[in-house]
Amino acid sequence: MEKLWTKNLRDIEPYVPGEQSSDSDIVKLNANENPYPPSPKVLDAVKGFDVSALRLYPNANATPLKQAIADYYSVDIKNVFLGNGSDDVIAVAFQALFNSDLPIAYPDLTYSFYPVWCSLFNIPYRTYPVDSNFRINPEDYREKNGGVIIPNPNAPTSLGEGRDFVERLMEYNQDSVVIIDEAYVDFGGVSSVPLTKKYENLLVTGTFSKSRSLAGLRIGFAIGSERLISVLEAVKNSYNSYTIDSISIEAGRASILDDEYFKETCEKIIATRERVTKEMRALGFNVLDSQTNFIFATKDDISMKDMFEYLKTKKVFIRYFSVPRIENYVRITIGTDREMDILLKEIKEYVK
Amino acid sequence: MEKLWTKNLRDIEPYVPGEQSSDSDIVKLNANENPYPPSPKVLDAVKGFDVSALRLYPNANATPLKQAIADYYSVDIKNVFLGNGSDDVIAVAFQALFNSDLPIAYPDLTYSFYPVWCSLFNIPYRTYPVDSNFRINPEDYREKNGGVIIPNPNAPTSLGEGRDFVERLMEYNQDSVVIIDEAYVDFGGVSSVPLTKKYENLLVTGTFSKSRSLAGLRIGFAIGSERLISVLEAVKNSYNSYTIDSISIEAGRASILDDEYFKETCEKIIATRERVTKEMRALGFNVLDSQTNFIFATKDDISMKDMFEYLKTKKVFIRYFSVPRIENYVRITIGTDREMDILLKEIKEYVK
Repeated sequence: MEKLWTKNLRDIEPYVPGEQSSDSDIVKLNANENPYPPSPKVLDAVKGFDVSALRLYPNANATPLKQAIADYYSVDIKNVFLGNGSDDVIAVAFQALFNSDLPIAYPDLTYSFYPVWCSLFNIPYRTYPVDSNFRINPEDYREKNGGVIIPNPNAPTSLGEGRDFVERLMEYNQDSVVIIDEAYVDFGGVSSVPLTKKYENLLVTGTFSKSRSLAGLRIGFAIGSERLISVLEAVKNSYNSYTIDSISIEAGRASILDDEYFKETCEKIIATRERVTKEMRALGFNVLDSQTNFIFATKDDISMKDMFEYLKTKKVFIRYFSVPRIENYVRITIGTDREMDILLKEIKEYVK
Repeated sequence: MEKLWTKNLRDIEPYVPGEQSSDSDIVKLNANENPYPPSPKVLDAVKGFDVSALRLYPNANATPLKQAIADYYSVDIKNVFLGNGSDDVIAVAFQALFNSDLPIAYPDLTYSFYPVWCSLFNIPYRTYPVDSNFRINPEDYREKNGGVIIPNPNAPTSLGEGRDFVERLMEYNQDSVVIIDEAYVDFGGVSSVPLTKKYENLLVTGTFSKSRSLAGLRIGFAIGSERLISVLEAVKNSYNSYTIDSISIEAGRASILDDEYFKETCEKIIATRERVTKEMRALGFNVLDSQTNFIFATKDDISMKDMFEYLKTKKVFIRYFSVPRIENYVRITIGTDREMDILLKEIKEYVK
């Protein structure tokens, strides 16, 4: 018989993280990681870090990193919030800003963590299906809600929306907080950060994990009005005062300061993406117009699930979702040109 | 007039972190930081870290660090949970294990974050005052509750309890989860980790911030039954899959592997603490018998608040709490012998 104390345990479905492999000879195109190393300035920051200072708590406000982000986006440091990766940032935002009895609203094809956070924090939600072209219809978000969250560009579709789309969202949602999740924006999307000066109820989130090649360091951020940021800070400081460690503060700052390297690697990834998109289309694939560091693709006459399994046997890992409407699609992260050549070679082999 | 969207914001009292100073010539004895640098093996781990690997997500289970902790405490890896500092670990534990309508129980003089987490997660609580000698009475915890959390040694009192105390707690609390918060245990306390094999409802938490000189890296852990750890993992994975960054995993592991350095620095701090305790008692102070890296002290005929303020003008920072019953006490972190000599000199100056 179950002991009485077990009834006090939170009954929660464990989230199953994506597949990992430590095999060094695989071509890993399944986690939207950046194929290029972080900036050489990050290397200098880590190698030059005064390890003896680790005996002290980090700067509680992570000021050096926050200030660098503020300067980069031309906002005040009071408009910047930091977290342990953008998952932490968005989780805090759900707790802090979606405190309503009305359901929050988000698209039906989107980041799989949104319903997980709703369940964790007991937040009601309603999803609005994307259309047959996988596009989000802003008219859906006229309905009264407890908040809105939309990734732009969206995942796993790779499709981005422009400024007009966000302006319409803000027009329709003056009574709730709108979060635009910009994890992938640096690969050709349109950022809504400038709109945070116009709309006090708009929060934009970002991450150093993709475009800045720092997934291993866990740095996420949000930009918004002082009012929104102060509530995020109050919740975060009620949870854990020191979320960003001392090395991450310095390494993240070094990344922001090397804008040339950042732009160069983003452009390389975009160029590779455009080439691979063209080559896959030539092979008969339908590839969506990506504004991210991955592509979302299908081919009518073959099973994407089988292709995904086949590629795995060839040590090329891509991502397949067993989800209605996209069960014949795959998501492929953009790697180096060499990695993508291996992918294309194996795909050609498979489809012929 | 307040806009409508502001009513969805969580209304929470911001937690105010302790005073920080970047002034390098202060004697900083106010945050219970370790005066010695981390192990030279940690230095090697950071300097030798392959920075290009930061482009990848960390090991999702932080296996190398978890396994090192498991080996160190002679438990299985499934008995170990990791978090971004022990505040993160305890916050997850409150969410995951105190899921009851009954109030949780903890001592009245204790870590100031407990009521903050109760408020954040809407957990009812009841506190039991420590006695006139600042000791915790285990009989208080016979009352039905939704969980128990007790720091051992306790803060800011510095007093530790033995194995019998915890055994009695477990006898009285068979229907709820008991957490023993061992942030300070390595400075002479008695660890309850071995009891986690006997009691499936006992969780012990620890941190690398004090005894391992790694406050800057944010590593906390918990040890308990597979049942408890699996619920912590489910909640943590519903919040943020990757809380421990790649550098912290390697640096934390290096710290665990250098047991000689660890023991040596803990012993140095204990020796300094015993000397300072003796010298302060000789000056007429009442100093509690500390089992931590700080001392809790008072002197009947002088105001501790004034002494605290005076020391600040002399660039010696200690901690004062404006809290009933301890409003004439100060908490002083044990620094190096040189730092404590400066403290003692200034205190002598002040009391004479």
